[in-house]
Amino acid sequence: TLKEQLHEMNPVDLATLLEALEERQLLITFRLLNKEAAAETFSYMNSLTRKLLIEGLTDQELKEVMDEMFLDDTVDIIEEMPANVVKRILKNTDEATRNSINTILNYPKDSAGSMMTIEYIHLKKDMCVSEAIERIRTEGIDKETIYTCYVTENRKLIGLVSVKDLLMSKDEDKVGDIMETNVIWTYTHEDRENVAKMFGKYDFLAIPVVDTEQYLVGIVTVDDAMDVIEEETTEDMTKMAAMSPSEESYFETSVLNHAKHRILWLLVLMLSATITGTIITTYEGAFSTIPLLVAFIPMLMDTGGNCGSQSSTLIIRGLALDEIKFKDFFKVIFKEFRISLIVSMVLATVNGLRIFLMYRDLTLAIVVGCTLVCTIVMAKVIGCILPLIAKKCKLDPAIMAAPLITTIVDTCSILVYFNIATLFFKL
Amino acid sequence: TLKEQLHEMNPVDLATLLEALEERQLLITFRLLNKEAAAETFSYMNSLTRKLLIEGLTDQELKEVMDEMFLDDTVDIIEEMPANVVKRILKNTDEATRNSINTILNYPKDSAGSMMTIEYIHLKKDMCVSEAIERIRTEGIDKETIYTCYVTENRKLIGLVSVKDLLMSKDEDKVGDIMETNVIWTYTHEDRENVAKMFGKYDFLAIPVVDTEQYLVGIVTVDDAMDVIEEETTEDMTKMAAMSPSEESYFETSVLNHAKHRILWLLVLMLSATITGTIITTYEGAFSTIPLLVAFIPMLMDTGGNCGSQSSTLIIRGLALDEIKFKDFFKVIFKEFRISLIVSMVLATVNGLRIFLMYRDLTLAIVVGCTLVCTIVMAKVIGCILPLIAKKCKLDPAIMAAPLITTIVDTCSILVYFNIATLFFKL
Ligand SMILES: [Mg+2]
Ligand SMILES: [Mg+2]
Ligand SMILES: [Mg+2]
Ligand SMILES: [Mg+2]
Ligand SMILES: [Mg+2]
Ligand SMILES: [Mg+2]
Ligand SMILES: [Mg+2]
Ligand SMILES: [Mg+2]
Ligand SMILES: [Mg+2]
Ligand SMILES: [Mg+2]
Ligand SMILES: [Mg+2]
Ligand SMILES: [Mg+2]
Ligand SMILES: [Mg+2]
Repeated sequence: TLKEQLHEMNPVDLATLLEALEERQLLITFRLLNKEAAAETFSYMNSLTRKLLIEGLTDQELKEVMDEMFLDDTVDIIEEMPANVVKRILKNTDEATRNSINTILNYPKDSAGSMMTIEYIHLKKDMCVSEAIERIRTEGIDKETIYTCYVTENRKLIGLVSVKDLLMSKDEDKVGDIMETNVIWTYTHEDRENVAKMFGKYDFLAIPVVDTEQYLVGIVTVDDAMDVIEEETTEDMTKMAAMSPSEESYFETSVLNHAKHRILWLLVLMLSATITGTIITTYEGAFSTIPLLVAFIPMLMDTGGNCGSQSSTLIIRGLALDEIKFKDFFKVIFKEFRISLIVSMVLATVNGLRIFLMYRDLTLAIVVGCTLVCTIVMAKVIGCILPLIAKKCKLDPAIMAAPLITTIVDTCSILVYFNIATLFFKL
Repeated sequence: TLKEQLHEMNPVDLATLLEALEERQLLITFRLLNKEAAAETFSYMNSLTRKLLIEGLTDQELKEVMDEMFLDDTVDIIEEMPANVVKRILKNTDEATRNSINTILNYPKDSAGSMMTIEYIHLKKDMCVSEAIERIRTEGIDKETIYTCYVTENRKLIGLVSVKDLLMSKDEDKVGDIMETNVIWTYTHEDRENVAKMFGKYDFLAIPVVDTEQYLVGIVTVDDAMDVIEEETTEDMTKMAAMSPSEESYFETSVLNHAKHRILWLLVLMLSATITGTIITTYEGAFSTIPLLVAFIPMLMDTGGNCGSQSSTLIIRGLALDEIKFKDFFKVIFKEFRISLIVSMVLATVNGLRIFLMYRDLTLAIVVGCTLVCTIVMAKVIGCILPLIAKKCKLDPAIMAAPLITTIVDTCSILVYFNIATLFFKL
């Protein structure tokens, strides 16, 4: 039957399927699911489909779905719904859950507290292994993960034990004896990006979250950490391309919002670029005497921009992965300086030769070559310094990327170019 | 004691600590660890420290460490070691392991097969839950994960059951009755990036890997998927900044190698930019009559480049996350076209006003404004088309990013600029 077929499907695929249905069919199909499947599928849907369902379901049905969901997903849904829907959702949850929801909603938006869930297993250190396993078997069904269990004493976290450890131990062993006491945890107010990075570093399935009084208040699981990593990477890339980050995907964002996210930086960069233009006008004399000089402006500006963006990209990524730290400041500059010498020599030679062969003008070849070397060295040094300084100033290094660096390097390279040209051609 | 303190530490932190020690101390400290801790710490170290240890350990000690490690980590280590070290490692493993290592080494470099491990639990469908749990308790200690167990019949995968399902079922239930039969698996030859994406989509802790005959040959675990995502993102960012990707981190890569990774694209882009330069020379007449025209070249080129890189970045990221597909081709172009209209109108108005106020020259303001509109529309359309076409042609969309797009847009915008100027100023 259709019902059986639906229950054989993975909830993620089921969510994709439901998203494609029209309202009436959506409700009929959703009602065929048992409450576990319904809740899990619900948590994987896009917000549009969720909204349709919330409008169509009765209060009783909505309550059943909400009761079955894990709290972190409930909170995510509440955060994206309009006020009247939120009211209906909260009306249909019991008081304890409502209080927990409000607590989580109060944590800062990008904090560990806002991504954690409160459904975890806790054990006591004087339990024996068989008792612990028994508790998991009775309580586990409602927990987001049962594989890491937390040992608490007066609500404080004193150790953890994995189900693997429990299963590998003898039934009569005490939890307190087999538990891991060196627990790596995080604070509710920690930035969620740092929490996500801990998963990559330590390969945990869950990380416990404690509040300022060191009470265990929740856990963050690896699947949610992966979502955070994806979002933070997209945010970095968006900023690196001179846009304000958006929470929505490409197609979910309206044309007007796309435009809004892009205009500000474009305006700033456009007006900054006019500085370079103004500088050029002061050398009007030079390029009216030798008009050919103008022909090399695009090449110099592009190469400078590309060199700068190579360096800044590597440094921004290295900072994001904690492979590069601010204390490496001089090490990085020295490294980029040496790289830029090699790169600029090769590029200047190739271009110098090309110019000499095309125009038979040695001075021009030397002028452009020297400018290239200066531009590339400047670009690479500026490209590595700015992200490091941003980090130090607690700014996001991602804004110090190609677009900004190109604009700065442009100005410098035009100045260098016309000064060298004036010198060599005695203009 | 020091030994106790070491055993309290997390193996990841222990690895960081050992990396900071000098050779003699490193060996002494490493020998204080029991074989489980030693193996786990070993798998988290950087390759330099590993090499030092391999050189210092006796054959017997090395064998103990290698026997304790999971096969995917052993293979990773073998892949990075020089031939003589590999020989020593292989000499110190038993024949079965050696064969498995060779099988994994034969899978393509970026495939699911190359990242999988073979230590997993398999069950039979006629086992009852208590028997299954018993098997986990006896065999689990050597398995990379016990939390997802695979049910096989004649080596073929017919279902999976999680430890949570086992613990939530009655002892006498049959594995065949409680197992999940809708198993989501991957092929040994699947690109590891796609495998990693499946973890993000389905929130699994492990994914089974089957060979071309549908035999279950291994599993991929979520911690290794996270590493792959990190590496693939870095690769994308590196390519987007016109560099050849490197497997090593920033500081591990030598100055010469950094230069090598950067020069090729810079040369290509530099020589392409000379096309724009050549075009400029054909309009020598125009800018000798009105030298002020040259002043707007940097602003036009930069704005075009920035607009193009905004679009291409969003499309490249959308393609990487499967949010955008090639079939959205016209939808994307139409969206970018509308966005570019809004953006270009705003920018052209601001800049037109500025020019009119500064130079009191309405024609100039109109020329620059019209060029801006054309440049921005072109930039955004080119910026979204090229990554989509690359995807269709099975090229990496990441190469169709800012640097290449800037160069193409530069040429177009210069052409448009001087044509509009010639028209309006009747040059
Ligand atoms: Mg949340
Ligand atoms: Mg890891
Ligand atoms: Mg969750
Ligand atoms: Mg989730
Ligand atoms: Mg952030
Ligand atoms: Mg960030
Ligand atoms: Mg540029
Ligand atoms: Mg591998
Ligand atoms: Mg996910
Ligand atoms: Mg592994
Ligand atoms: Mg690993
Ligand atoms: Mg790849
Ligand atoms: Mg890729």
